[in-house]
Amino acid sequence: MHHHVEVVVVGAGLAGLACARELSRREIGVIVCEARDRVGGRVDSVLIDGERVELGGQFAGPGQDRVHALAAELGVPVFRTHTAGVHLVEHESGRTGRFRGVVPRLSPAAMLDFAQAEARFERLARTVDPEVPWRGPAADRLDGVTLESWIRRTLLTPAGRRLFALATRLLWACEPAELSLLHALFYVRAAGGLRAVMATDGGAQQDMLDGGAHLLAVRMARDLGDRVRLGMPIRRIAQDDAGVVVTAASGVSVRADQVVVAVPPTLAGRIVHEPALPAARDALTQRLAMGSTIKCMIVYAAPFWRDAGLSGHALSLRGPLAAVADSGSPAGRHGVLAGVLEGAVARRLAGRSAEERRGLVLDELVRLFGPAAARPVAYVERDWNSEEYTRGAYAALFPPGAWTAYGPALRAPAGRVHWAGAETATRWYGYMDGAIRSGEDAAAAVAPRVTGGRTPVSG
Amino acid sequence: MHHHVEVVVVGAGLAGLACARELSRREIGVIVCEARDRVGGRVDSVLIDGERVELGGQFAGPGQDRVHALAAELGVPVFRTHTAGVHLVEHESGRTGRFRGVVPRLSPAAMLDFAQAEARFERLARTVDPEVPWRGPAADRLDGVTLESWIRRTLLTPAGRRLFALATRLLWACEPAELSLLHALFYVRAAGGLRAVMATDGGAQQDMLDGGAHLLAVRMARDLGDRVRLGMPIRRIAQDDAGVVVTAASGVSVRADQVVVAVPPTLAGRIVHEPALPAARDALTQRLAMGSTIKCMIVYAAPFWRDAGLSGHALSLRGPLAAVADSGSPAGRHGVLAGVLEGAVARRLAGRSAEERRGLVLDELVRLFGPAAARPVAYVERDWNSEEYTRGAYAALFPPGAWTAYGPALRAPAGRVHWAGAETATRWYGYMDGAIRSGEDAAAAVAPRVTGGRTPVSG
Repeated sequence: MHHHVEVVVVGAGLAGLACARELSRREIGVIVCEARDRVGGRVDSVLIDGERVELGGQFAGPGQDRVHALAAELGVPVFRTHTAGVHLVEHESGRTGRFRGVVPRLSPAAMLDFAQAEARFERLARTVDPEVPWRGPAADRLDGVTLESWIRRTLLTPAGRRLFALATRLLWACEPAELSLLHALFYVRAAGGLRAVMATDGGAQQDMLDGGAHLLAVRMARDLGDRVRLGMPIRRIAQDDAGVVVTAASGVSVRADQVVVAVPPTLAGRIVHEPALPAARDALTQRLAMGSTIKCMIVYAAPFWRDAGLSGHALSLRGPLAAVADSGSPAGRHGVLAGVLEGAVARRLAGRSAEERRGLVLDELVRLFGPAAARPVAYVERDWNSEEYTRGAYAALFPPGAWTAYGPALRAPAGRVHWAGAETATRWYGYMDGAIRSGEDAAAAVAPRVTGGRTPVSG
Repeated sequence: MHHHVEVVVVGAGLAGLACARELSRREIGVIVCEARDRVGGRVDSVLIDGERVELGGQFAGPGQDRVHALAAELGVPVFRTHTAGVHLVEHESGRTGRFRGVVPRLSPAAMLDFAQAEARFERLARTVDPEVPWRGPAADRLDGVTLESWIRRTLLTPAGRRLFALATRLLWACEPAELSLLHALFYVRAAGGLRAVMATDGGAQQDMLDGGAHLLAVRMARDLGDRVRLGMPIRRIAQDDAGVVVTAASGVSVRADQVVVAVPPTLAGRIVHEPALPAARDALTQRLAMGSTIKCMIVYAAPFWRDAGLSGHALSLRGPLAAVADSGSPAGRHGVLAGVLEGAVARRLAGRSAEERRGLVLDELVRLFGPAAARPVAYVERDWNSEEYTRGAYAALFPPGAWTAYGPALRAPAGRVHWAGAETATRWYGYMDGAIRSGEDAAAAVAPRVTGGRTPVSG
């Protein structure tokens, strides 16, 4: 069974679908091959008791033009994440405090320490060009150290350090040891700055999509119709002067002029290429591991915390959830809390039973929001590291040395093979917006290369 | 086409072959599936003008019991690497100096600086248990920083730092930024200490194998006969209660009771597993990139440097070769120099033409050994990062955070799937000795699990 098409897109996440959508708009023939039996990649949702609950990426914010434009095109309304009320912070000691804004109150010394570190981080981030983070006179030095080293060197108070480490877990779903300082700076620079990525109001968590972010993928797939093929994990990409043949696990193959691989780099590195990929591209994919996150969604009969003047937003230095957010939709009757287990905690708890994890999560919510939190209508979770076709979230992490050694290989096409995905975005790397942007950019790059010489091939 | 065998070994490097040899000795049925059309993995050699020239691993040393025992068993004589004479060092300035022993002469301040760093490194290394480097009270701290951070903090003189960075490149074929300090300490601890891994006489470069290290692989393969299948890259490993089916790119599959995967972790991570591997094992393979090295072998009509009182051994802080060693065999008529391009230099020069690389390498040899170095009989090189079925050398590198997060997943079997290779060794990690040791250990672990219930299956 052989198909022929101008472009094959590998992966029906937001990047792959946005790429195919843009190609279709240009009247270029495209097939999207998706490994799973669903579209959306790192964005997914489930219907619980009539409530649409998000199991993956869910937030958008100011400056994320592409996700907003796409939502408007697809008729998906955007609403503001609920933040009215007071936020909570749980300290390591178990003591709970209240705060407003982005940063919880610590001792004056720790607050000053954290604020100075934020300012230094922002200043450093402004020296990084997100198009070419491997350039710049300080790139080697910034890429030579872990974010942990920087935190230890920059922050002087234990409480300030703990808060910065918590921010690391929330932004990258990893421990500060796992990240190159340069990558952290690049990421923040590619978004709107440190406050913008941390904040809800006015920041990257400000907006949600009515019906769930997954609806973006579902609607793009609907428009693409039978151009999207599910259950088709791609195992091999063979190219020569005549074109490229993309082969699925089943043995089914598709001939095309160009291919856009829109899956995380570590998964892209598992596809067999003929001829083999250049050494630098291969070496890059050897290094880009995914973050570690388990997302927990807890549905209650009502958002009872709101009545108590609480926003539903909380940070915890004790854990296991690093943060909680009110994820209810305006029309929803239920109360919905989203919680995240991140980095080392996610790894540790992945080894426990679902029952035990649920118990630990609900214990924390009871500590934060009171006894009513013990009785949810539903509790669902998604361990993204266990998902064979994602293998971690939110995004790929650059360890020290990787950007400066292999940065140019991230986006450079290999002959007829092009790259998309949230990791190839030069703005909003790792975000839904970055994914959509990368797909559209890849479509624009591929379109002029499509020959139009469409001879159906059988074989 | 279906075979059935008790154990399938994936990869005919030293680890896979040693494993199969040990299984055969126990009268356990085994097939070794090798992707390439040759055995040996990261060990290879070529015959040039009657001289056996090593393109991969070539050295052994005291304490490397397994490689010595195997050489004796296989009738491969061991000889001492030629070191008689004076060694050379080329400074960044281009100035050349002479030295004896392991460490070249620097200024007194730099010498003291380097010696103190060595001592501190050795002391730290002794705190690491090579069986469980992720344990120990300081593991998190040591795994939170790059070796580069440690060098910057520990050494005070620029010359001392440059020398330690050169040692890093020679030991791990990477830049100090790419390595977790904990990994560097583990590696040295798993060998015989810092001096032992750096030294030729009395150290890990003391011995060579007459006929080439590749002869070990060739002779093991000869003994295994048709148990070794070449040109059979494995793409899929499916296991269930009944057994495991290993499938090659051609579609040919073999049924077995147990599988030993004896390829570098990053390549092991590209094999499709059914059911999917545990998240921790997958996350580990996402992180373990290979070092970057191009090995250059330069053959001369005679070892002319010996007549000048030179050993043929040289270090260069200027490069491109980081080090040169006399690799002639006692019976060989030619002079043979082995040189290595490491880390960032290997990456940079991989992009140049072979002609240009040869010119740069010979220029350095002329600077070191005089004009006679400009006229070799032959020049051969091997870029290990371009090799589809190795993708780097000498071994896998642990970036910060990987040992402490995922260490236990390195050797833990996944059901019927076991792991071998130089990276799973708890002694001489990354060395030929570690590879052989890991294969023998895997055989010992697998042997008791083989049921003996051999029902040939067709399908």
